[in-house]
Amino acid sequence: MTPGAEIGIRVDQTLTQDATGTMVMLELEALDLDRVRTDVSVQYVDHNLLQADERNMADHIFLRSACRRYGLWYSRPGNGVSHPTHMQRFGVPGASMAGSDSHTCAAGSLGMLAVGVGGLETAMAMAGEPLYVTMPEIWGVRLTGELPPWLSAKDVILEMLRRHGVRGGVNRIIEYHGPGLASLTAMDRHVIANMGAELGATTTVFPSDDRVLEFLRGEGREDDFTEIVADPDASYDVTEEIDLPSLEPLIARPGSPGDVVPVRDAAGEDVHQVVVGSSANPGLRDFAAVAAIVKGRQVHPAVSLDVNPTSRQILLDLTRMGAAADLLQAGARIHQAGCLGCIGMGQAPAIGRNSLRTFPRNFPGRSGTSDDLVWLCSPETAAAAALTGRITDPRDLDMEPPAVRPPRRSSVNRQMLEAPPPADEARGVALEKAPSIGVLPGLDPLPDELEIPVVIKVGDDVSTDEILQAGARALPFRSDIARLADFAFTRLDEGYPERARAAGTHAVVGGRNYGQGSSREHAAIAPRHLGLRLVLARGYARIHWQNLVNFGILPLEFADEADYDRVAQGDVLRVEHVREGLRAGTVIEVRNTTRGETYRARHRLSPRQRDLVAAGGQIPLLRERSAGQ
Amino acid sequence: MTPGAEIGIRVDQTLTQDATGTMVMLELEALDLDRVRTDVSVQYVDHNLLQADERNMADHIFLRSACRRYGLWYSRPGNGVSHPTHMQRFGVPGASMAGSDSHTCAAGSLGMLAVGVGGLETAMAMAGEPLYVTMPEIWGVRLTGELPPWLSAKDVILEMLRRHGVRGGVNRIIEYHGPGLASLTAMDRHVIANMGAELGATTTVFPSDDRVLEFLRGEGREDDFTEIVADPDASYDVTEEIDLPSLEPLIARPGSPGDVVPVRDAAGEDVHQVVVGSSANPGLRDFAAVAAIVKGRQVHPAVSLDVNPTSRQILLDLTRMGAAADLLQAGARIHQAGCLGCIGMGQAPAIGRNSLRTFPRNFPGRSGTSDDLVWLCSPETAAAAALTGRITDPRDLDMEPPAVRPPRRSSVNRQMLEAPPPADEARGVALEKAPSIGVLPGLDPLPDELEIPVVIKVGDDVSTDEILQAGARALPFRSDIARLADFAFTRLDEGYPERARAAGTHAVVGGRNYGQGSSREHAAIAPRHLGLRLVLARGYARIHWQNLVNFGILPLEFADEADYDRVAQGDVLRVEHVREGLRAGTVIEVRNTTRGETYRARHRLSPRQRDLVAAGGQIPLLRERSAGQ
Repeated sequence: MTPGAEIGIRVDQTLTQDATGTMVMLELEALDLDRVRTDVSVQYVDHNLLQADERNMADHIFLRSACRRYGLWYSRPGNGVSHPTHMQRFGVPGASMAGSDSHTCAAGSLGMLAVGVGGLETAMAMAGEPLYVTMPEIWGVRLTGELPPWLSAKDVILEMLRRHGVRGGVNRIIEYHGPGLASLTAMDRHVIANMGAELGATTTVFPSDDRVLEFLRGEGREDDFTEIVADPDASYDVTEEIDLPSLEPLIARPGSPGDVVPVRDAAGEDVHQVVVGSSANPGLRDFAAVAAIVKGRQVHPAVSLDVNPTSRQILLDLTRMGAAADLLQAGARIHQAGCLGCIGMGQAPAIGRNSLRTFPRNFPGRSGTSDDLVWLCSPETAAAAALTGRITDPRDLDMEPPAVRPPRRSSVNRQMLEAPPPADEARGVALEKAPSIGVLPGLDPLPDELEIPVVIKVGDDVSTDEILQAGARALPFRSDIARLADFAFTRLDEGYPERARAAGTHAVVGGRNYGQGSSREHAAIAPRHLGLRLVLARGYARIHWQNLVNFGILPLEFADEADYDRVAQGDVLRVEHVREGLRAGTVIEVRNTTRGETYRARHRLSPRQRDLVAAGGQIPLLRERSAGQ
Repeated sequence: MTPGAEIGIRVDQTLTQDATGTMVMLELEALDLDRVRTDVSVQYVDHNLLQADERNMADHIFLRSACRRYGLWYSRPGNGVSHPTHMQRFGVPGASMAGSDSHTCAAGSLGMLAVGVGGLETAMAMAGEPLYVTMPEIWGVRLTGELPPWLSAKDVILEMLRRHGVRGGVNRIIEYHGPGLASLTAMDRHVIANMGAELGATTTVFPSDDRVLEFLRGEGREDDFTEIVADPDASYDVTEEIDLPSLEPLIARPGSPGDVVPVRDAAGEDVHQVVVGSSANPGLRDFAAVAAIVKGRQVHPAVSLDVNPTSRQILLDLTRMGAAADLLQAGARIHQAGCLGCIGMGQAPAIGRNSLRTFPRNFPGRSGTSDDLVWLCSPETAAAAALTGRITDPRDLDMEPPAVRPPRRSSVNRQMLEAPPPADEARGVALEKAPSIGVLPGLDPLPDELEIPVVIKVGDDVSTDEILQAGARALPFRSDIARLADFAFTRLDEGYPERARAAGTHAVVGGRNYGQGSSREHAAIAPRHLGLRLVLARGYARIHWQNLVNFGILPLEFADEADYDRVAQGDVLRVEHVREGLRAGTVIEVRNTTRGETYRARHRLSPRQRDLVAAGGQIPLLRERSAGQ
């Protein structure tokens, strides 16, 4: 348990969603799994609900058949976003969870240890394998006092991002503690835990205390409660304090969740769209607050106010408490429950016009619009802009702060969660694969000698949204890597797929925090399908680094960051005796034959991971081992 | 007023929607209009609400600016589908209306004379010009008795389609009368009037009677009521009777609204999707009936039940009366108010699986899925399938018929209807055109000698959905003809755009009822942009024929239908002295130089229309005239 060492975690639960899940199900098939070995595994359908063509429902049908075959729960389209729905229906304090979604960490709100990982690791966890992570530092964040009126949990996590940016949490678990917790409900904590992903943290944990009991009671699951709180004398590797009363409403400027300023510093800018919802502000309270602010008023004529309920259960509660009617009367467009605009599935804003969203991310183009201007803020700040048509500090509205009284008991709704059949029956279930469900690409071993061109060189903080976009154009092809590969890197450079195909085996050069954001393993598999075998970067985001390893792409880091500037697109890089080099130590030499230079590069691979990369990834390694038995 | 002659109608109101409206606004600009001369012109945004990329909101912003400039009301995205919303907020018995949507005829439910036409004719109507139509026959349909339990208005219009098919109403106005009317509310009549479009009728009218007064009172507009009923001794060109008690639940089989059978004949087929909504079943009652049937029950696990509220006002009423909660609890996915799946914007079904919809149309591929299986039915039949997972006669459900009691007064909601500014202020409004808003293509005069190849030959009943598809792929390009042209005829033949571009000026050969369905003038403009100047068909749907004329494409009909079989794709057709030939009589000679044959063809053009075609269409004609003044 030393920070930096690789540790294995037993996994109690898994979570998959449809954008990553179809690939996971193909992996379960490739692993020849009979039935999941976890306590609970749930497949959600929340990302791709637009159904612009037949592929979408083909995915749903395939996922349902795979759930029935392998023993997963199936959460039907329209039931809700995975994270809040899982928290409501399945979350258990103290349980561990692996999820093929980067915001899986949101379950830390219930005192779970929940880690967002790639699809293949989630598949391995379902198969009973431990989840391997680099032992992180523990970052204790002490909260004191209570939030002032017009502020909410979103402002707390935006304050963390304001202080530390999108790399501040790398290789850390954030543990919140202190007296300030008492005023934050479990769902408020979900907001904070969810966007720990934006800090780059391995995960976030909150204690399981009275507020968690209160939440589980409201969901009719008080029997699942266990108290788990830190010892009074607990110590942390890193410490931090946030004085809640001193916070003010914050907003992330377009382009990065880490570019946070006070709302007042941006006030007055015209707004043409406001969207509330997503796993970053999923709670009944978040919607009810917006409803209370706009109640009896009217959305500004130039603004589209879009409301994305996070679950059918929450929409039902909003409807029963009258908040849905208040929203509609004020001019809101209420959509089906799901991720929708948060993953760029619809709700794309106009070019060059400000869109305020309660979402977790605003990476360039993630909204579906090139040259978008997406800001991230609290529900209160979003509602204020919807009324005024301008970025507005909600404290400057001429009204009382919203009084929100959600019901003590939720409209508990399990009817769109389909339990898997018993094992005997499950073995008779056939996977239903429409032609749009592809096959896993062939994965050959890593060549021992690489002499390959750099097909693209990118800057710092490149997100997986830029490496392999989601959104309405690309997401329908999620189940077909051969087709999806046409979208690789195209947000940054339209020419990459063609150049990569021409080059065959090739390399990519990246900056710091390469691959931040989503857990989508497609950002590894699709370039791999085009021949990517080596990434040389200044640094990596955790999940993407692991996805590269899982699919047999060698992730190296410049030992001297300055060498990054010496490499250009088109240069040929040579690595000799790769296997021996990886075994011999943590540094390996990369020769730039175009420029006649040599760079030192670190690999950070454990022995287990060295084998993985050399075999061409997890799947060929398992096949190799099973053939050898 | 002789059937077959061209007559001009003074137009009191116009209706446009976003899919046709952006082109209409460009036309108003080309016509150099200062301000609309109608009593009321309303621009709705209901078709394209997915916002898969930036083009969608760019259209909304452009439309809003054009409404403010030219003096139209602007119905904001999310306010609702044009036809029911117009009926609720603007419809006036006895008024005439032109609308750039084929279902404009739905307003006949209030005793309006409402005709669906192309965008350019709607623009001309806004400019104060008369609407020219061929004087139709009047078809009196006498209704007797009352509908039995489990049947509703949809079954009446499906009975008409069962009897007469998709060409049965061509060149007719359908007038419903008789004692059976008393049991049909104004919104029930909307269902029947709306789908008069599917019969090919010029329009449908109902009397303005007590049920219309009741409707207007419910909308807070009783002052707009005028009684308009047929004289007791009124006679009709054609007569028909429907005995309502003898009807049974009906369903249109995949592919055509005219292929209608009793539900019992199709019962038992598996269903994977049920969608309720659209202008064909838009009423509060239609949704409330579904809610009452599924209340306390659960949607079948293999079925997605999608609910598309037709207006924000109706959704508000459904929410307040508890029906929305009943639908959600039963597992429905409730979407924003709009056309959505009806125009192929999302909700695409899986290939080869049955989707039951309360929509008006099921032309192949209109759903967004190639090889779709879309059936059209009543809300009752749709709800029954949602519960059982199979096509089910609702009378076979083991329950009482649904008792629906909508409120007497609607939640009247005008807040998302933006009135135009006064003329002085309007003149200062600039049109807001993003780069995705294209320009009208150049329109040159019709050459006097045509010697051009047949680039495509198609069969009977080809719809404008096949000539120029809507749906999630194509609709975002509606404002840019140059780009949209890539989709022309591709549902039938992927090669058309390339061949047409290679050929330049060219011809198309069609079967009967060529261009049925939507009013979209894009189905004329886009092929015209690729060089189409001559269509030779066995017969035409009314609106598309007019759109061809409006854009300078010569529509000819085989005098001998058998000649259709003698022409093949690739043949070269020659027409000499076109202008003189059109003037000389109603028949013109078409020489097939490839085969050495000559066909006689009728043109049906009035002198006014001959000038239009010769000039290259309405816009160049007006320009020519205004230059001559």
